[in-house]
Amino acid sequence: MRPKTKFEQLFVVTHLFRWTLLVIPIALVAGSLVALFLWLLDWSVRFRFAHDWLLFLLPVAGVVIYGLYRYLGKNAEAGNNLIMDEIHEPGGGVPARMAPLVLVTTVMTHLFGGSAGREGTAVQIGGSVAQFFARLFRLTPGDVRIVLTTGIAAGFGAVFGTPVAGAVFALEVLTLGRIRFDALLPCLMASVLADVTCRAWGIHHTAYHIGTAFHFDFFLLVKVIGSGVAFGLAGFAFAETCHTIKNAGKKWIRPAWAIPVAGGLLIIGLTYLLGTEDYLSLGVMGKYAHSVTIPSCFLAGGATPWSWLWKLLFTAITLGTGFKGGEVTPLFFIGAALGNTLATLCGAPVDLMAGLGFIAVFAGATNTPIACTLMGVELFGADNVLYYAIVCFTAYYFSGHSGIYHSQRVGVSKV
Amino acid sequence: MRPKTKFEQLFVVTHLFRWTLLVIPIALVAGSLVALFLWLLDWSVRFRFAHDWLLFLLPVAGVVIYGLYRYLGKNAEAGNNLIMDEIHEPGGGVPARMAPLVLVTTVMTHLFGGSAGREGTAVQIGGSVAQFFARLFRLTPGDVRIVLTTGIAAGFGAVFGTPVAGAVFALEVLTLGRIRFDALLPCLMASVLADVTCRAWGIHHTAYHIGTAFHFDFFLLVKVIGSGVAFGLAGFAFAETCHTIKNAGKKWIRPAWAIPVAGGLLIIGLTYLLGTEDYLSLGVMGKYAHSVTIPSCFLAGGATPWSWLWKLLFTAITLGTGFKGGEVTPLFFIGAALGNTLATLCGAPVDLMAGLGFIAVFAGATNTPIACTLMGVELFGADNVLYYAIVCFTAYYFSGHSGIYHSQRVGVSKV
Repeated sequence: MRPKTKFEQLFVVTHLFRWTLLVIPIALVAGSLVALFLWLLDWSVRFRFAHDWLLFLLPVAGVVIYGLYRYLGKNAEAGNNLIMDEIHEPGGGVPARMAPLVLVTTVMTHLFGGSAGREGTAVQIGGSVAQFFARLFRLTPGDVRIVLTTGIAAGFGAVFGTPVAGAVFALEVLTLGRIRFDALLPCLMASVLADVTCRAWGIHHTAYHIGTAFHFDFFLLVKVIGSGVAFGLAGFAFAETCHTIKNAGKKWIRPAWAIPVAGGLLIIGLTYLLGTEDYLSLGVMGKYAHSVTIPSCFLAGGATPWSWLWKLLFTAITLGTGFKGGEVTPLFFIGAALGNTLATLCGAPVDLMAGLGFIAVFAGATNTPIACTLMGVELFGADNVLYYAIVCFTAYYFSGHSGIYHSQRVGVSKV
Repeated sequence: MRPKTKFEQLFVVTHLFRWTLLVIPIALVAGSLVALFLWLLDWSVRFRFAHDWLLFLLPVAGVVIYGLYRYLGKNAEAGNNLIMDEIHEPGGGVPARMAPLVLVTTVMTHLFGGSAGREGTAVQIGGSVAQFFARLFRLTPGDVRIVLTTGIAAGFGAVFGTPVAGAVFALEVLTLGRIRFDALLPCLMASVLADVTCRAWGIHHTAYHIGTAFHFDFFLLVKVIGSGVAFGLAGFAFAETCHTIKNAGKKWIRPAWAIPVAGGLLIIGLTYLLGTEDYLSLGVMGKYAHSVTIPSCFLAGGATPWSWLWKLLFTAITLGTGFKGGEVTPLFFIGAALGNTLATLCGAPVDLMAGLGFIAVFAGATNTPIACTLMGVELFGADNVLYYAIVCFTAYYFSGHSGIYHSQRVGVSKV
């Protein structure tokens, strides 16, 4: 039963030494590409702020993205799900073209005003770089699985500047209800090194701040649990809306290139209907001082009561009709905005509830409560770690078994 | 594949409501018993400080403990391992007598100067209380497994005042290399509620403090990784020494009651040989201002270069010859003392290295790196969370596959 050998520590040393050597080039390249990506993203959002008319080209951008994937993409369209499938059952591998394709198309999505995130892109960059080196070093299928997992960790750790959460996320996201400690340390090394590399290129991550000091209070605990339920349901609603829009588009709209056109037009229409650009692009920077952004959600009055729902709709339309980008930053936005609304409704500290929503909607939609608890610690500090765990675990229970990644397997059912 | 049903959230509500009702009495009783235990422990250590001659009765106490388990114990002697076995494969159940027996014998061990900890006792109290209620409510074998897991979480969360680490520990300790999210939220509820109950009885936990602010520094990183290796090897050495002493005693000493007599005599002999009582009992409070204790290890000069080895030996002798108590607080001591020594050797901040050793030796010896990372956050704050993860994950790799719990199964091999 126990694979115990004498001097097994010597094998550990060889094992870790080998993996350190393998992980270094992956992390350096992935971290650098993520830095380039974040820089381009920042540029594209600022450029759109200065050129309003870019939004009208969103449908055209959609057609171009569709064409790029149709004629150059091979199987890269499957994105994160392809990487997860390759880890579960190694097949044809992740194509090297995935990294440049997703980088260019995500920047296009943001430049023309689509509402999307970053993590999907970063994870795909990491996975594609990892696969490239796996081919170069002629690794065995078993090692390719590990190397792809380190690629996810590298991408995630670098894009959010949260290396511990990145390493745990890579292991936790693969199977619902289970963490297997395959490559625990190689994942952490990849994520730390990619994060350091990304910062070395001058990338700064947005700092979020929960000023409310921890106090154990029965009423606050009840509010936290209740909002955990709401955050979980919001994660569920997001995943379902994305799936529904994707299926509806495929079913009702022909030819296929018209799907992103319809998506683009919907986004333009909604923007003018609401009279605000706050729900376009990433949502981390605002065009105006009073714009609703993720940081503004941490302040009283920083979001409207329905901001969370609008961001959910804008993002589900953008991603469901074929634009590119991640889901996670919009999930942060949805969560922080919903937290802001709930704080006002139930009389709880706004910054605390926004921070809890930020991590919990994400925990629910991706079924990664432990990575998200650790992310809370890395972003907001240790003070309220008990509430992070409570809200993430609760959201995990209430987000259903679907989640945003259909290649995530169900290891342990939630009830 | 996906057990997805419409309105599965309704099942979640019923499931959680039922488990909340089940967990409340377990957590209240376990938390109260842990509070009583901690109070008695504190009293017994102070009483021994005032009455030096108690140490000479340690061999006699050993015989009494032996007799109690021999004639009253049934299968309670197996302790933590019995609870883990019952979770893996439900059998005859955990006897209710386990709680009072382990409480009384642990206090005796500390009162007469044995070097031992608290967590084993608290976990056994939690498990035994959980089994008691499981019988009362006539639960199915599947539910008994979950209820026992919540018992571990309740005991651990209450005894250290670290509820998040307690919940994750209960799930992580069962199988090496894997966390299954069975009962994620019931475990957290049990551990939070038991902790709150324990504090409500007026129990205060020792506060540890790492003053060194986080700074990313390549040389410090290398020192942290290197000491992670040392902490893992120390955890390995501790587990091996305990096993060796236990086997040697069984093989060479007859009758069986003479084993604790020999253990007691060895402890007395070593105490006089070293001329210090610092390695007796828990090690959290010192008899003198200059005593080596866990808190003193956080200060420069607060431990001798070999304090860690002496504490390792004292504890392995105490627990290996049949005295009762946990292993974890001594592991904290060994780790903090070794961290102190390594900090001096390699020129790193003493408080940081002591804190890292505190969690990492424990992570290695019990194979629970994620719970220990979270424990670091709960005890020392978020500042150095990256170093906590690095040191705990590294120690996990270097502690071998044996660990201190022989009922821990191997789910995923380390290399």
